[in-house]
Amino acid sequence: MNSETSRTLLPSVAGEQTTYTEALTAELASFLEAQRAILAGVSADTLPLVDALRDLTRGGKRLRALLCYWGWRGAGGGRTDTAVVRAGVALELFQAAALIHDDIIDRSDTRRGAPSVHRRFSNTHGSMGWHLDGDRFGEGAAILAGDMCLSFSEEVFAAVGPRTAHGTTARAIFNRMRTEVMAGQYLDILEEVAGPGQAPGSAVDRAMNILRYKSAKYSTEHPLMLGGALAGAPADLIDAYSDFALPLGEAFQLRDDVLGVFGDPAITGKPAGDDLREGKRTVLIAQALNLAAPAEARLITEHLGQPALTDALVGRIRNIIVESGALQATEDLITERSAAAYEALDRLTVDGLSRAALDQLAQAAIKRTA
Amino acid sequence: MNSETSRTLLPSVAGEQTTYTEALTAELASFLEAQRAILAGVSADTLPLVDALRDLTRGGKRLRALLCYWGWRGAGGGRTDTAVVRAGVALELFQAAALIHDDIIDRSDTRRGAPSVHRRFSNTHGSMGWHLDGDRFGEGAAILAGDMCLSFSEEVFAAVGPRTAHGTTARAIFNRMRTEVMAGQYLDILEEVAGPGQAPGSAVDRAMNILRYKSAKYSTEHPLMLGGALAGAPADLIDAYSDFALPLGEAFQLRDDVLGVFGDPAITGKPAGDDLREGKRTVLIAQALNLAAPAEARLITEHLGQPALTDALVGRIRNIIVESGALQATEDLITERSAAAYEALDRLTVDGLSRAALDQLAQAAIKRTA
Repeated sequence: MNSETSRTLLPSVAGEQTTYTEALTAELASFLEAQRAILAGVSADTLPLVDALRDLTRGGKRLRALLCYWGWRGAGGGRTDTAVVRAGVALELFQAAALIHDDIIDRSDTRRGAPSVHRRFSNTHGSMGWHLDGDRFGEGAAILAGDMCLSFSEEVFAAVGPRTAHGTTARAIFNRMRTEVMAGQYLDILEEVAGPGQAPGSAVDRAMNILRYKSAKYSTEHPLMLGGALAGAPADLIDAYSDFALPLGEAFQLRDDVLGVFGDPAITGKPAGDDLREGKRTVLIAQALNLAAPAEARLITEHLGQPALTDALVGRIRNIIVESGALQATEDLITERSAAAYEALDRLTVDGLSRAALDQLAQAAIKRTA
Repeated sequence: MNSETSRTLLPSVAGEQTTYTEALTAELASFLEAQRAILAGVSADTLPLVDALRDLTRGGKRLRALLCYWGWRGAGGGRTDTAVVRAGVALELFQAAALIHDDIIDRSDTRRGAPSVHRRFSNTHGSMGWHLDGDRFGEGAAILAGDMCLSFSEEVFAAVGPRTAHGTTARAIFNRMRTEVMAGQYLDILEEVAGPGQAPGSAVDRAMNILRYKSAKYSTEHPLMLGGALAGAPADLIDAYSDFALPLGEAFQLRDDVLGVFGDPAITGKPAGDDLREGKRTVLIAQALNLAAPAEARLITEHLGQPALTDALVGRIRNIIVESGALQATEDLITERSAAAYEALDRLTVDGLSRAALDQLAQAAIKRTA
């Protein structure tokens, strides 16, 4: 679409999105409040679990929920409908559950600019002067908080009603989304330990596969398809949504990988070079291992995943990534995947408002700095 | 019921149970096989996740599924019905998910006589000679395997169809079961760290509350109620199921706590005194802390939760538990809760066969040695 049309439509897009995200926030708050009452019945001591979920789900860009909304609208769904609000809440809770457990696995101390959930509980342990090991308590509590969040996600998804009942396309997408994300997360941690022993020539392919299943599909493809399915979209529209959203999600995550190494901590809310200390074998890193001189590739392999990695070494690895051409190769891939997404967007048979909204979300996802 | 009737009915009970558990095992295998195909589409490297779930769910006594079955039959449900088979699979998968995460939290190396799931993955790490830390990889993989199992549980539960749709009593019971178990598990780990600083006089009450939510409700009460709800039982029958199954579950878990300290490792499949090393603040321990002389109570508090606890100290703590009267107090509580369960069983308005089956399950749960 041309930018003239885009500019004209933006205020309506923004207005609808505000209405939707406000409804989503209210539904989420009311759901968590109801769960809070159940937990209070067990013991007031359990309330920190739901408080952690409440605080975590207040943040975030609501990207998945918004894609679900525009998938729904583009397939003829009405402006206000509990179905798409609840589906959005389910997606937000699912993401929160994934983040909580991911942060334990990655030993990440911060999330959305605040302590991660396991750190939050270990901090409480410290300030209360409790017995035994605080880190262990924090991890245990966060495993349970994530489990609860995962169950809540499903509970809200089922509460959409007949549109997500057994046998519906929406339910099939949601089920597949969960299985594939978890499989992708497993591939991610497997690559950290098994990747160094595998053929370096296939490292980029393996990293792309991880990115696709761990991130791209559930961040963009599945939410958009889900919104379409909820509104009863025909199969060809759901397929067309996939053609747009999968390359978009890949570009989105590639951008995330670049920011994880080169992002400004003040903007990303994460320490500089955090991905290097976590040992993430991203496409960016795989490109560097492929393109750098052997001695430099070895230096990366040796230091990747060392929590105590110094800032000097972070700087050196960054230089290798730039000078080997790995950064440029990744930026080229972002450009290519973005172009594929925009081409598919042009072919989408949706109304102008939904198209403008998807265009805007795509731009925000790919061009972002945090 | 008198033992004469019981003996007469037992062959029919056993026959029905075999038919049911065979159908359940087949449904579970076929579900996991379908998931295996989805994972194979992501990458053959992810198959160990579903293999771990397959092996873990082969074991177990199917107590929850059988209670669900007899709750269903007692409420007029037919002998063969996919609904109660799938609900049983959902309960078994839910329990497996809880066990996987519980074993991470408790650092338990064995489960059902085999390596626990996190240990299974760290063993693979070791035998493959992979990079970085094997324990950390094992924990990460088991967090994800548990998440997948939890999602699978829900997927199968939704696949029951209209009987578990949004708004049904069965769905409400399943939702509440999950939330309450997770809240109970949290109380359990909280008690390990915060319990020593709290009033010892209320330790038994706190331990009973943990036992109720972490174990009793989801082991017996919720499965039986769920079976009834699936068959359309009236509210008073569901309440009567609760009156029977909650004290039964409490007696069951109290027996488990006794076995965790005094059980024969050859029969329980867990090392002697495992619960002491894990630091479980069970009702048995709470009784000992209450009843023992101050110096002996201090000795328990000091050593509880020390993974390297010697066999000699395990023996000494066992002696304190016996000599303080804590073991007898716990056995008395088991007797009292069992009596309450049997009285409620006598009042149940169900057919003779279902009553005999519930009687038999109750006996197995309370009198067991493993």
